Amino acid sequence: MMSLPHTLGKCVTGISFSMSACVGWVHCISLLLLQLLGTKGSPLNCHTTCICASNVVSCSKMDLTTVPTALPVYTAVLDLSYNNITKLRAEWTPVKLPRLRNLLLAHNGLHFLSSEAFSHITQLRYLDLSSNDLDQLNEYIFEPLVHLEVLLLYNNRISSIDRTAFTGLNNLQKLYLSQNHISRFPLELVKDKTRLEKLSLFDMSSNKVKVLLIQELQNLPGWIKNGLYFHKNPLVCDCDLYSLLTHWYIRKFSSAYDFRDDYTCVLQGQGQEKRTVAAFELNTLMNCSTFKEEDEETYLDETVLLSCDTRHRNMTKTWMMPSNVPVTPNSNQSATVLPDGKLQLSSLRPEDSGVYTCFAVSAALNETLYVVVKVHNFTLDGNSDTLNTAYTTLVGCLASVVLVLIYLYLTPCRCFCCPDHNKDPKDLQGQNGKLNPNGEEDGDEDGLQGEAHRKKSVAESISSVFSDTPIVV
Amino acid sequence: MMSLPHTLGKCVTGISFSMSACVGWVHCISLLLLQLLGTKGSPLNCHTTCICASNVVSCSKMDLTTVPTALPVYTAVLDLSYNNITKLRAEWTPVKLPRLRNLLLAHNGLHFLSSEAFSHITQLRYLDLSSNDLDQLNEYIFEPLVHLEVLLLYNNRISSIDRTAFTGLNNLQKLYLSQNHISRFPLELVKDKTRLEKLSLFDMSSNKVKVLLIQELQNLPGWIKNGLYFHKNPLVCDCDLYSLLTHWYIRKFSSAYDFRDDYTCVLQGQGQEKRTVAAFELNTLMNCSTFKEEDEETYLDETVLLSCDTRHRNMTKTWMMPSNVPVTPNSNQSATVLPDGKLQLSSLRPEDSGVYTCFAVSAALNETLYVVVKVHNFTLDGNSDTLNTAYTTLVGCLASVVLVLIYLYLTPCRCFCCPDHNKDPKDLQGQNGKLNPNGEEDGDEDGLQGEAHRKKSVAESISSVFSDTPIVV
Repeated sequence: MMSLPHTLGKCVTGISFSMSACVGWVHCISLLLLQLLGTKGSPLNCHTTCICASNVVSCSKMDLTTVPTALPVYTAVLDLSYNNITKLRAEWTPVKLPRLRNLLLAHNGLHFLSSEAFSHITQLRYLDLSSNDLDQLNEYIFEPLVHLEVLLLYNNRISSIDRTAFTGLNNLQKLYLSQNHISRFPLELVKDKTRLEKLSLFDMSSNKVKVLLIQELQNLPGWIKNGLYFHKNPLVCDCDLYSLLTHWYIRKFSSAYDFRDDYTCVLQGQGQEKRTVAAFELNTLMNCSTFKEEDEETYLDETVLLSCDTRHRNMTKTWMMPSNVPVTPNSNQSATVLPDGKLQLSSLRPEDSGVYTCFAVSAALNETLYVVVKVHNFTLDGNSDTLNTAYTTLVGCLASVVLVLIYLYLTPCRCFCCPDHNKDPKDLQGQNGKLNPNGEEDGDEDGLQGEAHRKKSVAESISSVFSDTPIVV
Repeated sequence: MMSLPHTLGKCVTGISFSMSACVGWVHCISLLLLQLLGTKGSPLNCHTTCICASNVVSCSKMDLTTVPTALPVYTAVLDLSYNNITKLRAEWTPVKLPRLRNLLLAHNGLHFLSSEAFSHITQLRYLDLSSNDLDQLNEYIFEPLVHLEVLLLYNNRISSIDRTAFTGLNNLQKLYLSQNHISRFPLELVKDKTRLEKLSLFDMSSNKVKVLLIQELQNLPGWIKNGLYFHKNPLVCDCDLYSLLTHWYIRKFSSAYDFRDDYTCVLQGQGQEKRTVAAFELNTLMNCSTFKEEDEETYLDETVLLSCDTRHRNMTKTWMMPSNVPVTPNSNQSATVLPDGKLQLSSLRPEDSGVYTCFAVSAALNETLYVVVKVHNFTLDGNSDTLNTAYTTLVGCLASVVLVLIYLYLTPCRCFCCPDHNKDPKDLQGQNGKLNPNGEEDGDEDGLQGEAHRKKSVAESISSVFSDTPIVV
């Protein structure tokens, strides 16, 4: 069916150029009426166009161009797939459908979604818009769908996604964007504050993504990576990509494990033609090395958190020590399982080194993860402490020696107690400002004698330091 | 594509009557080969016949006659609707599909389900077999589907359901059997031990049910009745049916409230034609009275359990006393909310009479229910107790009187202590076997005298009973 403005245009043209042709007018008016009716849609008919089974309304493959009106308020499932509903306007349902859970609109040639298309169906859980002609997703388009859990958008022509397109989908668990024309990987959906909290399956396969922020992806939790599909994209070949994929494959993440052969990348050698190669063969083509899980290295007396990075969310986790003793709340004060499933090890000693095992259990999966801990036999902070103490002791020692030397050789002469003003001031200095009790005069005949005498007086003066009467402060 | 026996038949005919026609033979053989290939099915092709988006495989409306083989083990959604898969054999998937959650087979003309069709997809949650040609459900057909939550079987030709057909569906929440030819209401699915524990939506609308066990339905919990649809059935008109429906309507049970106008019944007056009338108009047609919720009547000191019969399952329930005081664990020892949400009132007194309010809350619904309690000012058991005591007292009294009379008049005479053998034995009896201490002889001159004397002696003898020396046992 033609769109309303188009029909109107034809009729207005009709007014200008063929006023006389009454038949044309009648035709135009009837067309307009039909169009208006069509835009509004015809009321739900549970006998001819739809199959109604209590709260299920199925009107698939009925050549509908609009959504039937007067849908019952109790409708929970509305199947409109395989029709010709090309536009989903704001007023497709003039009344709220507070119990609508599933809306199926696949295979409709849909190319327009009003920004208010979903404002009356806020309880929706499952929205199938796959296999249509959608080419963009406007800002805040899905915002009213706070309860939506599954959104199927695969096999459309989407090339641009507004950064706010999926804002508000706080309960979205599965998002299928496969088989579109998207060139930017929307990392914001899985990372940081903007991420969709519950998204555990995000299908970006068969798109036009060339560049991935590998390190950002690698830092995501295991349960996100497990459902993060990006095969069949024209990715640029890179050893980081190889390393990431091999890691994900070893971890048996579904995204890499199930689609191993579908991961390709574009390789361009110097002066060579671009060619698409299997990403898992990059080790031979680009001499990439396989990812190696790093050990958890730590130091004496440190506290460390071991993560049990499972493939699924919300698994029940139990830990086992290297000695094969399970960690229980009362077993070991230095090992505690935190509420988020992480194992906290405190006051580490070298004998705590070893393989810690995490057993994760959920209804769908049992998983066992190993974390290797290596505790060094010295403290990182403690080491520098020791060094500081040594330094200060050394400095203290040196300072004492310097002071003693100053005491011995550099004591200033006090004039009033000099017995003889003609005496060599060097000798007075040598006597350390103390009177010779014998009152003997020190001769200065030759250097050797003076030297010998000086040695004696030094010995005396040192002993005098220790024989002094106690100092009263 | 034709079915195999049909093709074979044509070829066998070909052998008998047109052996010479080699071209016919080649045609037959190629047809047979095609057919055999068709039976086995061709491998999944994600380019031509199916759209594959990570774990979703959609092969709808592709004129498939068999399920594609070599389905990936990670398939979670398999959409085969709008094809020509008329038979679902045991070997449709020779390998297990352990992650298959949704299987869509609607609009296929399906008329045969192997009893082992579902043995390889035990993790299934959602099975759509609607709009097919199924005419019966064999025993234990769905038994492997222990995790199934939704089963769509509407718009088939099912006339008979084996009593074990749904056995094993312990997690089934929604079962759509609308628009079939079922004449027996399968009460066993919602009642007693055979019931499907979690079934909260059971659509039996648009079938051929004539008779319902009204009282059995009325005794079901509210959350089952809320989703028990049985409109558009040729039910026999009956005031019990009217009463049930009006009650469900007042309680706003979706089954009656949302489909009020779709409940009809067949009315046959004496000598009149059968006619279908609106069930909600039976009050005027058959002079039926509306359902009235009965008060909870009880007696002094009794214990009573008030049920909060909500429309949804697993709602959080809080109770309020007639005095508008909420029932908290510590507030009142005689009123306790049990783990199942019922209110237990014990040691009831007449002042406990009144309207008890239950507030039920869930994510989807808030509900308020009222229960009127009337406590009679006497005990039911206590009443008969009082009567029994009165009777026993009365019987005791009478027995005493009789014993006294026996004592007075019927004491047997002991011969050895008779003072005079000639004495009137009646007189001796009158003296109660005791010797007259005076030794006086009782004369028998006249009745009056004798009477007077007897009276005296009676008084004496009675007093003597109490003046006896203590009995030493």
